[in-house]
Amino acid sequence: MTMGSDNGLRPVNGEITRTHLRHVVESQQFTVPLLMELFDRSHEMERIVRRGGTLDYQNKIMATLFYEPSTRTRLCFESAMLRLGGRVISTEHARAFSSEMEDEQVEDSIRIIGGYSDVIVIRHNEEGGAKRAAQVSPVPVINAGDGNGGQHPTQALLDLYTIYRERSLEGLSIAFLGEMDKGRTARSLAYLLAKFDRVKIYFVSPPELQMRGDILDYLDRHGVRYEIEADASKVIGEADVVYQTRIRPDRVSDQPGLKRYRIDSSVLAKMKKNALILHPLPRTVELDKTVDGDPRARYFQQARNGLFVRMALLTMVLE
Amino acid sequence: MTMGSDNGLRPVNGEITRTHLRHVVESQQFTVPLLMELFDRSHEMERIVRRGGTLDYQNKIMATLFYEPSTRTRLCFESAMLRLGGRVISTEHARAFSSEMEDEQVEDSIRIIGGYSDVIVIRHNEEGGAKRAAQVSPVPVINAGDGNGGQHPTQALLDLYTIYRERSLEGLSIAFLGEMDKGRTARSLAYLLAKFDRVKIYFVSPPELQMRGDILDYLDRHGVRYEIEADASKVIGEADVVYQTRIRPDRVSDQPGLKRYRIDSSVLAKMKKNALILHPLPRTVELDKTVDGDPRARYFQQARNGLFVRMALLTMVLE
Amino acid sequence: MTMGSDNGLRPVNGEITRTHLRHVVESQQFTVPLLMELFDRSHEMERIVRRGGTLDYQNKIMATLFYEPSTRTRLCFESAMLRLGGRVISTEHARAFSSEMEDEQVEDSIRIIGGYSDVIVIRHNEEGGAKRAAQVSPVPVINAGDGNGGQHPTQALLDLYTIYRERSLEGLSIAFLGEMDKGRTARSLAYLLAKFDRVKIYFVSPPELQMRGDILDYLDRHGVRYEIEADASKVIGEADVVYQTRIRPDRVSDQPGLKRYRIDSSVLAKMKKNALILHPLPRTVELDKTVDGDPRARYFQQARNGLFVRMALLTMVLE
Repeated sequence: MTMGSDNGLRPVNGEITRTHLRHVVESQQFTVPLLMELFDRSHEMERIVRRGGTLDYQNKIMATLFYEPSTRTRLCFESAMLRLGGRVISTEHARAFSSEMEDEQVEDSIRIIGGYSDVIVIRHNEEGGAKRAAQVSPVPVINAGDGNGGQHPTQALLDLYTIYRERSLEGLSIAFLGEMDKGRTARSLAYLLAKFDRVKIYFVSPPELQMRGDILDYLDRHGVRYEIEADASKVIGEADVVYQTRIRPDRVSDQPGLKRYRIDSSVLAKMKKNALILHPLPRTVELDKTVDGDPRARYFQQARNGLFVRMALLTMVLE
Repeated sequence: MTMGSDNGLRPVNGEITRTHLRHVVESQQFTVPLLMELFDRSHEMERIVRRGGTLDYQNKIMATLFYEPSTRTRLCFESAMLRLGGRVISTEHARAFSSEMEDEQVEDSIRIIGGYSDVIVIRHNEEGGAKRAAQVSPVPVINAGDGNGGQHPTQALLDLYTIYRERSLEGLSIAFLGEMDKGRTARSLAYLLAKFDRVKIYFVSPPELQMRGDILDYLDRHGVRYEIEADASKVIGEADVVYQTRIRPDRVSDQPGLKRYRIDSSVLAKMKKNALILHPLPRTVELDKTVDGDPRARYFQQARNGLFVRMALLTMVLE
Repeated sequence: MTMGSDNGLRPVNGEITRTHLRHVVESQQFTVPLLMELFDRSHEMERIVRRGGTLDYQNKIMATLFYEPSTRTRLCFESAMLRLGGRVISTEHARAFSSEMEDEQVEDSIRIIGGYSDVIVIRHNEEGGAKRAAQVSPVPVINAGDGNGGQHPTQALLDLYTIYRERSLEGLSIAFLGEMDKGRTARSLAYLLAKFDRVKIYFVSPPELQMRGDILDYLDRHGVRYEIEADASKVIGEADVVYQTRIRPDRVSDQPGLKRYRIDSSVLAKMKKNALILHPLPRTVELDKTVDGDPRARYFQQARNGLFVRMALLTMVLE
């Protein structure tokens, strides 16, 4: 309360939190101080969960309103709320179940369900659905993914937290492998990484699926160095983090060439000894099961970090 | 415990509660004293929720057994139980999911699930389903809607509570707009209103969708005044409450005439200055979004009142 | 802690519990001492539930991961966890809802959801699915049924507990009526019964649906007496327990003969006066509703016992 403000940062930071974290709609809304507060809290949540503790949210209700199913994301959010001591009401597949939900404008649903809950986690099938929800909601809204071209900010936040836990974000070198043009994950994380100094990004993808101009322009404007590559083996040895994502084979003409974007034992041999291997999961063939035993694999930890980051986000929006 | 019974009413009332509120199957089972007890409790729940409190139901389990989905009703009941401190087990769509549930007689399912819970909230696809459930259940049953021609008593109760919170039910003037013949809402609420003195009801509907004889006969027998109208503009200025419901366009021959049953700014101008506008939601075109900003609009509050009324009902059947 | 070990049994028993009840995958893994510990705990759970109490599991989360729906089993497990004071995250129908869940290997799903929960209850559509889950899970796994030819161990355990509560398992005489060849219930319970002395089993079934050789060989090796019968009336008077299961009519050539495997008033007249009538439910025509009123009927109690046995199992794997 009466803490010194010798550098002016903490109180401002606190203000930012209270002002800007009413809703979580897109990753761009997170400033560096807000990210650091989120990560401090996430780390604290990790400690609480490890010792089997809980927090004091027993009178708070989270509604998970999923217009399309996303089982792992939903279960992660629900676990996060329960680990805080809170309670959950839930719909797994609102659109398929309920003509009432389909007919109804999302705005009306949100106004109603906002009367039954203290925070709404929404997965909407249309880009912009979460933003529309936030504009009318009487309670905080967290975007758990909206549309294919939309945002999935909590995925990007847990990705960044996973790196932050083990590496300095400043001066980080990261290689993305997979579909860049439609890869929501790589796109969102690129936005967040651009907030940190001296980051270097490698986009490794078949040419027809490469990262689109909007992100590259954004990186240019923010002075972020990047390289466009078609062959993972050329850059894989440079990366502190190798972030693998899926490639749908039907989107590529050169099918045999797909092996250049897969991680197997020969690729492992070329990586830095202390690199981190990430993947948003689920995986298909692009990430071989033999990688699971490699000490650099972090994708299951990454999934688990989603719990801590979502717990932290919930504490911030419920404040 | 040893309270006086100077007027004989409270103990009797208490008896009625304990005797008659084992199950909630249809709105007709509610006497005026029981309604008043319910509304007193609902108001108390409103206060508890507003101050972020809870009650002492942590060892009670509510099962929501929905043979067909009704997402908003289910989430409202679940929130109500959680706000009481209780716990919930749930099935969103028993019929579609589970051949076992489809094959099985509802009586067997209820006997089994009654062994796992302290109260069952049932939504059944057949008229009379809730009554059949109540006849065999080892625990209280609450009807959350059964069939199209059936009952949805908690909707009628929350509608009545919404009016009661702001107006005297005695001498009330109310206009129903929309489909009267198949409108479960208007039919159920008419039954409840007939219990109060000097009520005046306007049924405003295209002639082919007007209120059926069974309700009109019931109102005649109970001395309730009503008028049958085909044009909202003629009576809208008389109503303390305007209760709007949906009209399915394919049920009407005079499509352009449908606008006579819609609420927009020109209709608003004709209403009483302190009228209340209700709607069970979801809405389609019959209730324009511009009405949302009108100080007389109460439909979102009405939905939220469902929480308090259902909390109150749960406390009554769990006693 | 410092209890005597005069017979060497309890500490060993305790060891077995801690060693062997990490996961519950198949009924064969249960030794007699482990069964006795389970049943002691189940009985204690019965007492706790009867007095409206709860236990101290408020910081534990159970995930119910049902790849195909089984509403009653899922609700029973969820009620069990809530009655312990614990919390639940749930998916009713993972396979239908979620392409991500369908594409993904069950191993990856389990590793991820094991990061969000303290125990996973899995219903998998393929035989062996639960075993695969247990092999990689970071938390205990309980099999709630896997495939048609697979196991459903908690059903067999609750069946055995229901008998144990009222009869000595040693010297027990039991008649199974119904489909023996594909009847998961009869098969699993036969395995468990073979662990007790002087058991006599009657398999009563149309010849083409009789018990298969693998079980009969197993019983031979364990010295269990059994008889193969095609007509219930010949043996029904000998049985302490009559365990009825379903026969799908399309699997039988002699349709009129099916009545020989049904329980109605004439069959009731031939049973022992203190026999117990069990059925896993749901039922179709093979178990007449008139039996419900017979004092020997135990099938609803049997379903309810599932709650106590599953509570007990959860306490054992969460230790």
